[in-house]
Amino acid sequence: MNVAVIGGGGWGTALARLLSLNGHAVALWCHRPEQVIELRETGCNARYLPGISLPKEWRLESDMAAALQGAEAVVFAVPSKAFREVVMKAAGFSGLAVSVTKGIEYATGLTMCGILREVMPGARRVALSGPTLALEVARDIPSAIVAASEDEEAALRAQELFHRPAFRVYTSGDLLGVEFGGALKNVIAIGAGMCDGLGFGDNSKAALITRAIAEIRRLGVACGAQPETFAGLSGLGDLTVTCFSRLSRNRNFGEQLARGELLSDLLSNTRTVAEGYPTARSAHSLARKLGVETPIIDEVYATLYEGKDIFQAVKDLTSRGTKAED
Amino acid sequence: MNVAVIGGGGWGTALARLLSLNGHAVALWCHRPEQVIELRETGCNARYLPGISLPKEWRLESDMAAALQGAEAVVFAVPSKAFREVVMKAAGFSGLAVSVTKGIEYATGLTMCGILREVMPGARRVALSGPTLALEVARDIPSAIVAASEDEEAALRAQELFHRPAFRVYTSGDLLGVEFGGALKNVIAIGAGMCDGLGFGDNSKAALITRAIAEIRRLGVACGAQPETFAGLSGLGDLTVTCFSRLSRNRNFGEQLARGELLSDLLSNTRTVAEGYPTARSAHSLARKLGVETPIIDEVYATLYEGKDIFQAVKDLTSRGTKAED
Repeated sequence: MNVAVIGGGGWGTALARLLSLNGHAVALWCHRPEQVIELRETGCNARYLPGISLPKEWRLESDMAAALQGAEAVVFAVPSKAFREVVMKAAGFSGLAVSVTKGIEYATGLTMCGILREVMPGARRVALSGPTLALEVARDIPSAIVAASEDEEAALRAQELFHRPAFRVYTSGDLLGVEFGGALKNVIAIGAGMCDGLGFGDNSKAALITRAIAEIRRLGVACGAQPETFAGLSGLGDLTVTCFSRLSRNRNFGEQLARGELLSDLLSNTRTVAEGYPTARSAHSLARKLGVETPIIDEVYATLYEGKDIFQAVKDLTSRGTKAED
Repeated sequence: MNVAVIGGGGWGTALARLLSLNGHAVALWCHRPEQVIELRETGCNARYLPGISLPKEWRLESDMAAALQGAEAVVFAVPSKAFREVVMKAAGFSGLAVSVTKGIEYATGLTMCGILREVMPGARRVALSGPTLALEVARDIPSAIVAASEDEEAALRAQELFHRPAFRVYTSGDLLGVEFGGALKNVIAIGAGMCDGLGFGDNSKAALITRAIAEIRRLGVACGAQPETFAGLSGLGDLTVTCFSRLSRNRNFGEQLARGELLSDLLSNTRTVAEGYPTARSAHSLARKLGVETPIIDEVYATLYEGKDIFQAVKDLTSRGTKAED
């Protein structure tokens, strides 16, 4: 199949490599022309995927129209803040549109497939999400992920497109649940990183994760997701890896903040995007609109947007309730 | 309150220290008289809790009757294989009996509080279980745990006994669910450690944990536990910390096996007990009796008791199903 991957960050590159290994004709679109030149000349994405050899037989483009030429499937792997703008450039596309971006648009409360529905109404929408650190996928370390769509056949097509022995793709009909799990866990991971940065240890983090999955489920269900989705790979699975792994950007972002780095410095680092930062604001706003209790998201939001002291926030979080189900 | 802690391993010592800090009169019973002498002389438990200063005002005993003298509460922190034998020595006790041992007796399928019910019928039984690595608790790193009992007042008394700012105790009425979560996660942690030892990465582990909690719940519910307990601190919380932390014995045990160490060598190391080893056998047997599907427990069992190749077992585990809920 002809597939265009839009976005040459770590995840876009890892998935383009995987699609190429699966025998598809892949075009990888990079935002910066210099990156196209670098990937062509070195055969590596040293910035995001150090040590990984990239395919030789793919097309590298910085022109969107050229990348989309002949594409039957398009994979969007761009930061959430650029998602709407990028998708608008491909608005007429009517094939399989796969979002691997995790976020919630602040102004609308929409997930990325919600934006696709508005901007690219002719496409068949799928979200691909799960516990899949890009570098591990690029190293062919066994991973599992969920292809979710309201359109069962589209989910099956995405499964077929990406599936390989070390990258198992499962299907789900709960698009919203899969997208909410993926987006919200990044907010929690910032909180988990803050615990790490303060030296709070694994016991604290496990308690945080346990409460977080209940909170994510509560907010997701209020938006129309299925509760059981949050116990799966794209919910609990993604949450645990993002909160525990050294490779997690959002965890690292929280850890650096707790160790005293300035938010403004971290945000001006264009190399990696901590999606939990914008998502904290969107989720906090959505929860207030819907009247859902989200104590962890609220504390992360307060540290990122209201200048609340991180130690105080973590302390406030770890002193709630007296019964196991509180 | 007068409290006897039976067992001078890492967890027993950490809890005895905590009870002493809470102002209780504590007697710590150690199996080996040499250990009593060492703790008295050095003020440290260098073997299990390096760097932790121990209380001066507790009693150290290697005579069980002396340790139990005047005790209103007894905490059992001995390996599961010695549990029945040790409890029998205190069979007449009729106060608060708290088990912090995680296991399932092979011959009977009983949890530790099930053994207490048989052997010490006059006591009020509580299980204390959750994501609480002993060394982190001894370092006063914020942790949370569950006190579970069929007797609500007993759970509240245990909560009062142990609770402190950095050690939050929640109560639960689902004794069986809390005990099954604590026991079964050790089996899964051996599997997670095997993944680590084979270099399988955090993506694989997150997928394993996601499937494992469903499997643990299935077996627990078949034995009479409440399903929601497994989503809490003593289920999911304890599972994540045990599978991810470098400090987890059972994870380390699985990792060392996968790296080629001999099972017989690891088992003859008396310093640490990997409770997942006997529990794998008990859980496997229980699941067969009840007709419950336990694919992860079965693979761990096969590597530990039937000589199955670890790489093949992990491979077999990571290649199941096609839908997210499989």
